[in-house]
Amino acid sequence: MSRYQVDDATLEDIEAERATYTPIADATRQLADLSIRTQASPADVGRAREHLEAAIALLGKDVMEGSYGVRHSRIGVTRAWGNAVVGARNPIAPPLTIVRDEARVCSEFELSAAYEGPPGLVHGGVLALILDQLLGEAAAAAGAPGMTGTLTVRYRRATPLGALHGEAHVDRVEGIKTYAVGHIADAEGVCVEAEGVFILPRWARGEQTGPTRFE
Amino acid sequence: MSRYQVDDATLEDIEAERATYTPIADATRQLADLSIRTQASPADVGRAREHLEAAIALLGKDVMEGSYGVRHSRIGVTRAWGNAVVGARNPIAPPLTIVRDEARVCSEFELSAAYEGPPGLVHGGVLALILDQLLGEAAAAAGAPGMTGTLTVRYRRATPLGALHGEAHVDRVEGIKTYAVGHIADAEGVCVEAEGVFILPRWARGEQTGPTRFE
Repeated sequence: MSRYQVDDATLEDIEAERATYTPIADATRQLADLSIRTQASPADVGRAREHLEAAIALLGKDVMEGSYGVRHSRIGVTRAWGNAVVGARNPIAPPLTIVRDEARVCSEFELSAAYEGPPGLVHGGVLALILDQLLGEAAAAAGAPGMTGTLTVRYRRATPLGALHGEAHVDRVEGIKTYAVGHIADAEGVCVEAEGVFILPRWARGEQTGPTRFE
Repeated sequence: MSRYQVDDATLEDIEAERATYTPIADATRQLADLSIRTQASPADVGRAREHLEAAIALLGKDVMEGSYGVRHSRIGVTRAWGNAVVGARNPIAPPLTIVRDEARVCSEFELSAAYEGPPGLVHGGVLALILDQLLGEAAAAAGAPGMTGTLTVRYRRATPLGALHGEAHVDRVEGIKTYAVGHIADAEGVCVEAEGVFILPRWARGEQTGPTRFE
């Protein structure tokens, strides 16, 4: 398995891929929400199933091997479109749009019924999932990317489903270890805090860390 | 918002709900995978989109307010069907089937392309998400349920996408705090370990902790 894919995709290729496939992810996100919340009649649900099976047959005509991976193009665009938090083609991802600057990364996002744990509240593990991504992107934005070594999440209070804000920054770098901290807040303030240690994997040391423009 | 819902659903009602709606979640899980991996032609994708829009319209005819919650029926069945890890109606959930006994909980599950972080590997945050659920269920199984207070995840090595095993048990209980530990392993051994502190929220103290049969 190639861990570091570089391709010759042009901007036009990338925009064509986006235009063709991301609407499927967007529609599937709506379906994920409806799958949980619909109270439609068995007859309507039966007809909906037929449409879903038809869509599955069409999309299944040509499927790539394995997973999407992370694709770096020679023109300097990185597509992590299969990523479980930020992937534009991944319906499991909300997806987060993460704004990066040198000192920190942040994101405004909304979590709906599909991210529920306790009634009306965001699943604690979903908050850990999002914080892992935010902290990892903070490490990458600071020029010290890595895979998560340790993640510690402290839940200050319950996080309601709805509009949330997340942010993270690097606290310090010690050799191959990058220490990042961050939090997720609602309109009333911080709900959950995290700190993480990110470690550059052996296979990536000495390689380019990749283009800086993420999509 | 009622945090603790009790309803009069009969076994027949519950089986009818399962038979009607969980196939939609199953189909949407397939669509989530295809959304990432399809290479179908723009023409086929366009036709698939029309089917998805038709399904959305049918399922959208009658939708419950808010989120699914956690439903306890008087006959002793608990449905956490909207849960982001174990919810049968939630396409974002793999979903995990967690087997409980007094001393520990465990689960055999498979993570496909939609749970990717680094190329070919499970997203570190997805592992945290699943461990949070496993540890929380271990606490509940031991009769000391709670919401996550702190979660610490240690990544021993990269976790490949594919077949995985998870398990957790309670280490000790101190007043309202339950300390649980667990791990996720592949065929070669442990990939990631976690410990968590679970705290019974104020609103749930003095209430029944709910029926013991989870669905």
